[in-house]
Amino acid sequence: MPVAAIQDLSVKENVLARVEAIEPAPDGHRVTLALAASTTGPEPSQLANMLFGNCSLQPDVTLEAVAFPEGYANAFAKPAFGIEGLRATVGARGRALTCTALKPQGSAIDRLARLAGDFARAGIDVIKDDHGLANQAFSPFETRVPQIQAAIEAANRETGGRTVYAPTFSGGWRALEHQIQVARDCGVGAALVAPMLVGLPALQELRQALRVPILAHPALGGASRIAPAVLFGQLFRLCGADAIIFPNHGGRFSYSRETCLAIAATARGPWPGVAPAMPVPAGGMSVERVPEMLNDFGNDVMLLIGGNLLAAGADLPARAREFVAAVHGGGRP
Amino acid sequence: MPVAAIQDLSVKENVLARVEAIEPAPDGHRVTLALAASTTGPEPSQLANMLFGNCSLQPDVTLEAVAFPEGYANAFAKPAFGIEGLRATVGARGRALTCTALKPQGSAIDRLARLAGDFARAGIDVIKDDHGLANQAFSPFETRVPQIQAAIEAANRETGGRTVYAPTFSGGWRALEHQIQVARDCGVGAALVAPMLVGLPALQELRQALRVPILAHPALGGASRIAPAVLFGQLFRLCGADAIIFPNHGGRFSYSRETCLAIAATARGPWPGVAPAMPVPAGGMSVERVPEMLNDFGNDVMLLIGGNLLAAGADLPARAREFVAAVHGGGRP
Repeated sequence: MPVAAIQDLSVKENVLARVEAIEPAPDGHRVTLALAASTTGPEPSQLANMLFGNCSLQPDVTLEAVAFPEGYANAFAKPAFGIEGLRATVGARGRALTCTALKPQGSAIDRLARLAGDFARAGIDVIKDDHGLANQAFSPFETRVPQIQAAIEAANRETGGRTVYAPTFSGGWRALEHQIQVARDCGVGAALVAPMLVGLPALQELRQALRVPILAHPALGGASRIAPAVLFGQLFRLCGADAIIFPNHGGRFSYSRETCLAIAATARGPWPGVAPAMPVPAGGMSVERVPEMLNDFGNDVMLLIGGNLLAAGADLPARAREFVAAVHGGGRP
Repeated sequence: MPVAAIQDLSVKENVLARVEAIEPAPDGHRVTLALAASTTGPEPSQLANMLFGNCSLQPDVTLEAVAFPEGYANAFAKPAFGIEGLRATVGARGRALTCTALKPQGSAIDRLARLAGDFARAGIDVIKDDHGLANQAFSPFETRVPQIQAAIEAANRETGGRTVYAPTFSGGWRALEHQIQVARDCGVGAALVAPMLVGLPALQELRQALRVPILAHPALGGASRIAPAVLFGQLFRLCGADAIIFPNHGGRFSYSRETCLAIAATARGPWPGVAPAMPVPAGGMSVERVPEMLNDFGNDVMLLIGGNLLAAGADLPARAREFVAAVHGGGRP
């Protein structure tokens, strides 16, 4: 609104945003704004509104970086597990973690459960649903999830492993509450959610309702307008994601290596009172790229390879074991 | 996933998306994809996932248009009121509607309530919260909303008018359920929600829980990557918005006139079984532009002018009456 129309002096002094700096930048200007923390709720939807609500509608404005005041995160959910909790859950110390995906959409539940069993027997740490496996009639959450969880538990008993399953949580709050109940009842060990599909507040409420590590998926993140390191690394982490999936460079997507390293850096960087979240590079990765990815991201990473394992067809179990061995070996041949 | 890795023939035939056409376009190519409706849930988060989930992460892909199969909308909330229901709620026939906004953030509740009373006495149809008035400590929903609603009811009793109040609904499902209860208890007559802030599924669930017209706000819509007519005109309408707020051309935002007309066209265009939604051009509009806006959008429109009225200071009541008279007069001087 017009600043001249603000009649309340305390609004002008304590609420109105301030322009702190305007600096020339290669592609325009870098503008630093100071917002009053009191305007943000403090909760995820109003925080997003203050950071990039109306600005998202401007074609030439991007949100590049956010700094939160000390203690700001305390009102938010924050990761319950973080990197250390995720390691403890799957029993993985001193090495990178492995992750794969159940797909395609439309597969019979029996087939998905067999696939999950094969992956678990190969020793993969986290088996997630493809984020396209939601709650469709061809494999409803309430029948799919218990069956896949049972297949993974059977494989764990066979191998002594601690593989966990992360099904996709989707829909509105009634649907999510039902899914939380189903997942709890059958002992599911992790969760997958795309915060921009269900809403950033729903990530936070899932985190509060579930007692398992949460993987955040970037779908609908439209991250060319909000820097991916801000949206995925900072905001998803603030609202409770324990692991941050993002499209790694050189795959099916076109993020640069620098963008990917920046996402990993914000996901696991220091933030007082907020546990580091596990970066999960993904999106068309292959077993052959394991050494390079471990070199890029180090040990505090979970590598996600889906289609490349599935493409092995009948050799899938061997290919999955190859993936696990490459990661456990630290990428050394 | 690699198509070659799909082993189930029925998935290939019934679930796999098809490329229907690839045509050259001025800025690249226009690609038409056919998705299986069964993959979309049918519910808002999974629909958004299928339409633009991973694609939103591609810098050179935009979602330009969507066509739904016959009957598809039946599984969704759809507008409960639509244009006709909104007209009936405020008692406005044969003319455009008027709307204004309470702001700024941080104002004392008393001040906002007085402002609402002034606007209602001027005969404005819908008084909405600025979408930045959420549930902050300086004006919590549960104390702000009953007080503003009371001020508007008092003004209505004075004038015989039927002005309604649309407070901002924000936060996660626990917060929304509480807000729904507060709004019902004090008889609030409309609602404002930004679906991209709270999540598209929350719009649908608000629509199902509230018995009042819902105004959808575009904040965080980042609509340069999804055509605004698709996101605001089609998806918000499908999920239950009765009125669609969007930044009109020539104001604080930079949508073209064509984009704005396209939003209005999809918001109120024919869709079997789905009531038309009221287009609400906004964003830095002025009373002087009323004739031009009525000429652009016709009578089935609600004009939203906020800051331009507030800027009148002590003359606000007169300026608000001028706005109402201009709209009731059909834009004729």
